[in-house]
This record gives sequence, structure tokens and C-alpha cells, in this order.
Amino acid sequence: MPAHLVQPGTNITDSIFDFNKAIIDATHDIAVAYKPNLAFYECHGLEGIKAFEMTVRYIRSNYPEIFIIADAKRGDIGNTSKMYAKAFFDTWNTDAVTVAPYMGKDSVSPFLEYPGKWVVLLALTSNDGASDFQWYGAHDGGGWKNTDPLFWQVIQKSKTWATQDNMMYVVGATKTEYLEKIRTTIPDHFLLVPGIGAQGGSLEEVAKYGMNSSCGLLVNNSREVLYAGKGEDFAQESRKIAIIKCQQPMEALLRANQLI
Amino acid sequence: MPAHLVQPGTNITDSIFDFNKAIIDATHDIAVAYKPNLAFYECHGLEGIKAFEMTVRYIRSNYPEIFIIADAKRGDIGNTSKMYAKAFFDTWNTDAVTVAPYMGKDSVSPFLEYPGKWVVLLALTSNDGASDFQWYGAHDGGGWKNTDPLFWQVIQKSKTWATQDNMMYVVGATKTEYLEKIRTTIPDHFLLVPGIGAQGGSLEEVAKYGMNSSCGLLVNNSREVLYAGKGEDFAQESRKIAIIKCQQPMEALLRANQLI
Repeated sequence: MPAHLVQPGTNITDSIFDFNKAIIDATHDIAVAYKPNLAFYECHGLEGIKAFEMTVRYIRSNYPEIFIIADAKRGDIGNTSKMYAKAFFDTWNTDAVTVAPYMGKDSVSPFLEYPGKWVVLLALTSNDGASDFQWYGAHDGGGWKNTDPLFWQVIQKSKTWATQDNMMYVVGATKTEYLEKIRTTIPDHFLLVPGIGAQGGSLEEVAKYGMNSSCGLLVNNSREVLYAGKGEDFAQESRKIAIIKCQQPMEALLRANQLI
Repeated sequence: MPAHLVQPGTNITDSIFDFNKAIIDATHDIAVAYKPNLAFYECHGLEGIKAFEMTVRYIRSNYPEIFIIADAKRGDIGNTSKMYAKAFFDTWNTDAVTVAPYMGKDSVSPFLEYPGKWVVLLALTSNDGASDFQWYGAHDGGGWKNTDPLFWQVIQKSKTWATQDNMMYVVGATKTEYLEKIRTTIPDHFLLVPGIGAQGGSLEEVAKYGMNSSCGLLVNNSREVLYAGKGEDFAQESRKIAIIKCQQPMEALLRANQLI
């Protein structure tokens, strides 16, 4: 956080909201979505969650065309997922929520019952730990030779629970070598692609293997954009990085694929 | 909720907290742990989460011997799980949090860095959807003949990340046929066992296959106890059900196994 936003005496709700508001005001015309990460609000307790609520409301009121994804990685037995769905789609009114698939269909279905809202299901994530279980079942340990890895099973099963109009998948930008194969089973679904920027993924690679005839990609860059500057002009620094690292390369890729 | 707690004009924070307080006051001497489920607070937004905070604080202040498990099913990339760990162990000061394993080691490890705090990792859950992915890898579809199911892999890998003093596992009471086998690989870990009561699991079966030399079981009963009564005396009704369905049978089982 820039020092001037966390002066002694400033409450944490204001610090976070002022930070978010500045970044949003500086980037709304070059962003299609914002993806607030709940952990970074919950760690501050009520004051943090208040900043989350204010941020969502601010985007809704001022930039109603922007898609809001609650990055929350929720998922529990049916009667509990129903309450999480209520929290994110009703109470907080985000457009989408990231959901973890481990508990299966009844942990995902309640999120699918809200018209116009989206589940973003974890498939192949961008972190190191993705190799611990998401590749389970592929006995050669990643080469996909004999049997399918778990994440493939997650996609195969879950795509029957929903449509491409209310489900998308997380596929990490650090795993582009598998995007091409993933596109053979879900050619039309949108993919939420984290891992560009701080995690080292390449936008060109993601587009090469993951872009479809309606783009089909929501490419996320969090830390590299958010923490681009530390001074009074931090939001303009964020805008600069967002343009250089995301908007311009994406525009070029969309043009190259004749999508704009 | 009993009608007298949700009179028009009562705010939701007070309704939830008054309900929880009454149940806690009526059951603290026959409970070893409480397991608030975050979804049921989050669905009410800030007011709900305020009730969660007040509830945890109330237990801590009045019944410091009680173990508090935040049932939150969190888990994300390392830098994010670190913030969830801060939320639950630092800000909200619960003793344990339920964690989903899908994203692997770096999504679990940050929770293990708090001395005296516990991860309760999902292994084999009690819901129908457990069969969708938790059995993946066992190609005969549940019989465990040729290869190990995913949940077994989750236990095998994750038990090397932690010790029996900071990790326990969720194993549903509706899956007791597998408890015996699970005890062959984690004989000493505590298991959190949901699914008794509303979900149909049997405490006797759970104890038969899952109890170890220090008990090793935290058996949870949520809905059957919480919603035992709807009148002014709801908390006493909850106490009665908790005694009949949980405390007395558990005491008998502990005696039968010479643990008390």
C-alpha cells in the first residue's frame, strides 16, 4: 500500500477502499473485469469486509458494465454452498465466484441456480501445488500418457452440470502447454487465466492455445498492476502497467485473431 | 430460527448472536468444540460476520477450554492462503479451520505456520458429491481394487506436510466402511467427522472403525442439535438432543473403549 494511504489514524476500511477506488478510476476503461480476492479483506476482519462491500458497490454504481468476480474459492455440502451462493450473488451482488471442485456436484450446483451469475470452477491452477492433486490419475506424473489427470475429470464432469453461459474454468497461465488440449473438450467456455505477471505466465502463449472465436479468455493480472507504484501517483502507475502488460498486448492479439 | 429471535425490528447480528449464545450456554459443558460455518454468516454480509466475530469472542471469554473450528473450506495459492490463515488464526482467533486440498501443498502450508493452530483438511466428505472426484483414480468406481482414490492420495501426501499435532482430517460419518482403512495410514490423527444426525451417519459405526487410543474423533452434529426446538426453550431442546444423540452415546463408547 502506498504510504500516504496508511498514515497512522487512517482506518483500514478507508485505506483499502481509497486504494481500490483510485485503481478502479484509473483503469475502468481498459478493464473488462475486477477480481477482488476475499482473503485480503477477511484478514482485516469486519473492517476489511466492509471495504470489499464498498468496492463492489462502487464498481456497480459507477461502472455498471464491469464484470465482478469474487475470488473466494468456496465450496461445501449443498445446504452450505447455497448460503455461499446467497452471500456472493445476492448479498454482495458480484457476477461470478471462484469455486473449488473437491466436494463435487452438490457443492457447485447451488451457485448455478442464479440467472445471469457465473461459477468459475478451479481446473488447473497456476501455483506449484497444482501438481500435488490436479494431476492425480495420470500415472506418469504429468505426461498424460495412460489415464486422464484429475483436472481433466473435473472439466469433463462439471461441464455437464452447467452451460458455457454460467460456468467458466480457472486454467493457469503457467500451464499453457495444456490449454490446447483443454480447448478440445471445452472449446467455447470462457477461461479465467491467472498467472500472468508476478507468477511468470505469458499472455502470448495463453492466447495462442486458449483464445477461441469469441476470445474466451479473461486474463488476470493482480499484483503486477496493483503494486506498480508506491507514491501519490500509484494509480497512474498501475494504469501504465495495465496498458503495457495487459491492454495493449491483448488488443494486438485480438486484432491478430480478427476479433476486433 | 425460533420466531421470538427474529421479530420485526431485530437486527440480524443480534438474532444470530442471541441464538448462538443461548445454545452455547446450554451445551458448553457437554461439548468439546464448536464449529461455526462461515457460509451461514457471510450470507448476511457484514451483519452476519459481526455475529460470527461476537460468537467466537463469547466462547473465548466464557468457555476458554472449548476448541473452535472455523468451518470455512478455504484454500488458495500461497500468498492468498497466508491471508486466510491470518484471518482465521490471528484476526478471528479460532483454533482450527477447514481447508480444501485441491490446490495442493502451498495452499495448505501457510495455515500450518501458526503454533497451536490446526488445519482440518478435507479428505472424504459426507455429501453425495464426494463420489464425483474424491474417488477419482480408483478405476472400479469406489471399490478400491486397483489404484488408490484421490482422497487416499490427499491423506498420503498431506500427512508429510504436518504432524498429528497440527493437522486433522474430515472423514464423513456416512463413509464408515472406509474409516478402518483410513486408520491404517493415519492411526493417530484426529478426525473431524460430520454427517451424524441430519445426514444419516451412525456414531457407533464411526467409533467402531475410527476411534483410536486417545479417542481421535471430533464428531459433529449441527442441524439436528441447532434446530431441535423452535420455541422460547429452544436451547434446552438443543441440550436434550445433544445429550441423547451425542454426549451419552459418546460417553458410553469412550467407557467401552476404556478411554474414560
